[in-house]
Amino acid sequence: MINKDSLTQHISAQFNADLESVRSNLLAMGGLVEKQVNDAVTALIDANSELATTVRATDTEINQMEVSIDEECIRILARRQPAASDLRLIIGISKSVIDLERIGDEASKIAKRALLLSEDGEAPRGYVEIRHIGDQVRRMVQEALDAFARFDVDLAMSVSQYDKNIDREYKSALRELVTYMMEDPRSITRVLNVIWVLRSLERIGDHARNIAELVVYMVHGTDVRHKSLLRNKQDADSAE
Amino acid sequence: MINKDSLTQHISAQFNADLESVRSNLLAMGGLVEKQVNDAVTALIDANSELATTVRATDTEINQMEVSIDEECIRILARRQPAASDLRLIIGISKSVIDLERIGDEASKIAKRALLLSEDGEAPRGYVEIRHIGDQVRRMVQEALDAFARFDVDLAMSVSQYDKNIDREYKSALRELVTYMMEDPRSITRVLNVIWVLRSLERIGDHARNIAELVVYMVHGTDVRHKSLLRNKQDADSAE
Repeated sequence: MINKDSLTQHISAQFNADLESVRSNLLAMGGLVEKQVNDAVTALIDANSELATTVRATDTEINQMEVSIDEECIRILARRQPAASDLRLIIGISKSVIDLERIGDEASKIAKRALLLSEDGEAPRGYVEIRHIGDQVRRMVQEALDAFARFDVDLAMSVSQYDKNIDREYKSALRELVTYMMEDPRSITRVLNVIWVLRSLERIGDHARNIAELVVYMVHGTDVRHKSLLRNKQDADSAE
Repeated sequence: MINKDSLTQHISAQFNADLESVRSNLLAMGGLVEKQVNDAVTALIDANSELATTVRATDTEINQMEVSIDEECIRILARRQPAASDLRLIIGISKSVIDLERIGDEASKIAKRALLLSEDGEAPRGYVEIRHIGDQVRRMVQEALDAFARFDVDLAMSVSQYDKNIDREYKSALRELVTYMMEDPRSITRVLNVIWVLRSLERIGDHARNIAELVVYMVHGTDVRHKSLLRNKQDADSAE
């Protein structure tokens, strides 16, 4: 088991500083990614092209953060040769940044849809669902990061469970939108924009779950991915 | 620079054996994943439910391979404390398995669509595109793995470029299918099944590109993700 205190128990003060630095950089990246999700959804709902453009531009910053945290992890592995829980922490961080970067990509795609919708005209339906599911995935990302910051396994587990609700709501929103398109085929292009946004949100939920599962791995050393404890295949792709 | 020969230059024969073992396990996993993509597309085009069910079942095997290769990487990091190119090789492998596992997930989703289409009835359009784009992404996965097996940077670069064509074809197929849905709204549900399959194929292409970029990283130590050399943001999400 690791916890925050164990971070202060290293023989080398420098090693300690390295670990704390990479960990806080990951949390900073997480904070920015969370803001990107929030801003992208807001830009879409408020038809705010300026905000959408900012989200698109900020994605570069997130990509740079990914590369730099990754390099930090490799430097620590090479110089400090960490073992046991420290090694798991570094591996966990180097995997979490992949998910954070992809959440950033999805936020950028949502911002792109916001721009398209402001050109093509508003979609006739789906904004309520986007706001609702958007709030939930944002909370998932936030709680996954909190779980990471506090090495809180219980919170991580609850984030992971949460994903099932989102998949369910995504599916139901999709059904409703398909019915709408059938009734009004001229709306298909615009409704598809909404569907892509919902799908991006659903993916963000998946990535948040991955991060939560990495927290469990870092703390317990147990790989819970693909385990029935936190998900099962049926649920995992039922959103499709 | 690393190449196959450098694998035989380690002081410890056991370390050597460890590296060779994890590397060949990754390639075995890659071979299975490639077969899954192939089988999923075949199951869909031939309306072969039995094959689709096999693909769905085999996904568990791929997930197990991911966990086991990952554990192997961590064991090597902990025991052998590799440096420089060996460290990059291990990090590259531990990241490549994530992409391989997700390619497996997409193949499983395609198989699920194959089952749905055999229940709902065939889609009126899109099979030609699925076959065509399917062939291309399968080749991408294959070449990314070949590039990995031979540490072939030139091949890796060409795989990465290839992804742009797929994005372009995906976009054009999508436009055609949207037009079709507008003309025949009763087909929407079935055509959407085809769209989800095309999207899965496009994602598989993205993952193959990630693996190709990791080959460049492993050989040169340069992180080419997010670099204009191999992709640019505009291209990367133009498929949306």
